[in-house]
Amino acid sequence: MKFICEGLDLSEALLKVSKACANKTTVSVLECIKISAFNDCLTLLASDGELAIEKKIKADVLEEGEVCVHGKTFTDFINKLSGASVSFNTTESGLEINYGENSTSLQVLPTDDFPKINFDINENHFVIKNKVFKELISGSIFCCAQDDSRPILKGCLFNIVGQSLTVTALDGFRMAVLERSTVSGSGSIKIVCPARTLSEISKMIENDDGELTVFVQNGMMMVKIENTVLTSRLYQGEFINYKNITPTEFTTEAIVSKEELCESVERAGILIRGDKNSLVIFDIKNDGIKITSASELGNVLEKVKCNLKGKELKIAMNAKYILESVKAIDSSELKLSFNSAISPFTVTATEQNGSLYLILPVRGNS
Amino acid sequence: MKFICEGLDLSEALLKVSKACANKTTVSVLECIKISAFNDCLTLLASDGELAIEKKIKADVLEEGEVCVHGKTFTDFINKLSGASVSFNTTESGLEINYGENSTSLQVLPTDDFPKINFDINENHFVIKNKVFKELISGSIFCCAQDDSRPILKGCLFNIVGQSLTVTALDGFRMAVLERSTVSGSGSIKIVCPARTLSEISKMIENDDGELTVFVQNGMMMVKIENTVLTSRLYQGEFINYKNITPTEFTTEAIVSKEELCESVERAGILIRGDKNSLVIFDIKNDGIKITSASELGNVLEKVKCNLKGKELKIAMNAKYILESVKAIDSSELKLSFNSAISPFTVTATEQNGSLYLILPVRGNS
Repeated sequence: MKFICEGLDLSEALLKVSKACANKTTVSVLECIKISAFNDCLTLLASDGELAIEKKIKADVLEEGEVCVHGKTFTDFINKLSGASVSFNTTESGLEINYGENSTSLQVLPTDDFPKINFDINENHFVIKNKVFKELISGSIFCCAQDDSRPILKGCLFNIVGQSLTVTALDGFRMAVLERSTVSGSGSIKIVCPARTLSEISKMIENDDGELTVFVQNGMMMVKIENTVLTSRLYQGEFINYKNITPTEFTTEAIVSKEELCESVERAGILIRGDKNSLVIFDIKNDGIKITSASELGNVLEKVKCNLKGKELKIAMNAKYILESVKAIDSSELKLSFNSAISPFTVTATEQNGSLYLILPVRGNS
Repeated sequence: MKFICEGLDLSEALLKVSKACANKTTVSVLECIKISAFNDCLTLLASDGELAIEKKIKADVLEEGEVCVHGKTFTDFINKLSGASVSFNTTESGLEINYGENSTSLQVLPTDDFPKINFDINENHFVIKNKVFKELISGSIFCCAQDDSRPILKGCLFNIVGQSLTVTALDGFRMAVLERSTVSGSGSIKIVCPARTLSEISKMIENDDGELTVFVQNGMMMVKIENTVLTSRLYQGEFINYKNITPTEFTTEAIVSKEELCESVERAGILIRGDKNSLVIFDIKNDGIKITSASELGNVLEKVKCNLKGKELKIAMNAKYILESVKAIDSSELKLSFNSAISPFTVTATEQNGSLYLILPVRGNS
């Protein structure tokens, strides 16, 4: 393999592709970027076995071929090249990189072991506005499970019926249910996308104004953003049916200012930062919500004005869960809806805006 | 103790003072901020036993007194208050903080155990331009020892004779010797300042144009910057005599471009990031310096143009040490001066500018 290309083009492409390289794995080829040089085109591909990112750039290919190099080392090295034109050449000692009078050779691995990535994914698709997609991801991803005990919960459920898209994420303690519209699509789709994939797609979207097409086929998804192609395995299995666990009637409904609630819970949270449960207690009365927290460092008592409909209630919850949900809702007024101190409660905007968070209270502490 | 003060003033002051709070210590009072309310003035003081920072702000003192509260918790909590006027009151349950309709109480510790800080430090002093002080710190501090095996090496030696100030820092592998001028002073001073103290002072200096007065007495130093007073213990003992170990004559002198050298060593460093010695080899010849590095990831061969005076030489060194020194010198052309592959070598500007770095080569690898 032998080719010459622009250092800057290559560097930009590598920064994007290397996001799919695995970190610290026993399968070293998954830490690699596969370089293929054919027909005056350089194809860069990385895959950690779940997520794959590919990008093509122009190159002057003198001798066709392909090779795998360590992704992070190669990316950082090319990023430090200031020269314009760089030439590459596979020799016995590896991939030789020549720039100016200088020469570096990197160890290579054979491409045989590199995962085969299928880019022929087009059975189903949906089109969504970039801005809406980013909102959906930032609003749901923090509710995904972090650990591997139930792998499917490390993803977000995308459920499309007609032009209505519902995204659901849950970790067993809280859940996000976001409803938005797609621009168009091939029909009903129900997939669970890994949170990491969604986060990488969200970071790839540079322009809020455009549209994004998501292709789905055979347990795989694919997205193209300006010459960069991302594919990802989807999670298989049955996702929890969020409709069964979301209450629709409530005995206590409190309307509060988002800003006031946010500030109070933040202050209450400072004293209980080290605690496992990060427990705050809401005592919801007609004249307002009394928010308290206590630890060996001291205790906080805050009052937040509220407009109460229904029964008074005292309920204990995790400060982090309520705070993250409150911050994620785009509305100056919020509605907190409860049934009892041991039932899940919801956080929504007062005017239905398609974002709902369901949180489990902490039992036996209220 | 009872007082009312502006939340914003208090928050700003706490952010500065809390820098001196100890982190994770068994002596919990060192994690505290001591609050003293006397004569319509609030004095905030923190000390980790070595470094102390004090700041006074105006307050409406209704009942005089003093108390210790957990520094980080108190600072973060006050920082989250949006209200203007906050009232404080010591009760049986601790320090009660009232803001709006809300109330928080923080655990307090008695002030008896809080270190006594002596602010009567004025026997000797020197005045230095803020900009020069910051240059001296950023140019020397990275050469200080990180571990506790020889505590005095965790500081910088300040040696003043007349208006000439020499700052020295070394960790056993490399040394910085920086010579600058003071504006004025009380005479000869020779002190070893803890690196952490110098770093905090440097961060406190907001304005590059002003001047700074450093007071010294009895193994202590003191600095005042806009109502904030910092004192610090100085390190005691004999610092290495840098004049004895700095060679003055060399058999090999190479003049190189700072930018070219910097880029080449950075690239050579990428392949050896994981290695303990981070070894690069300089092969200095008449037609340039050949810089090489090798690891299991590959190997780099770079050529940097040089103007050689004296003998050719091959020498091995730590990439991080040479790179940090090269970056710290404010000159587009640098002079590297050597005697042999096993003798310390120096990095300076071609035109003497008062900055010299001495680096030990790595033996047996060249």
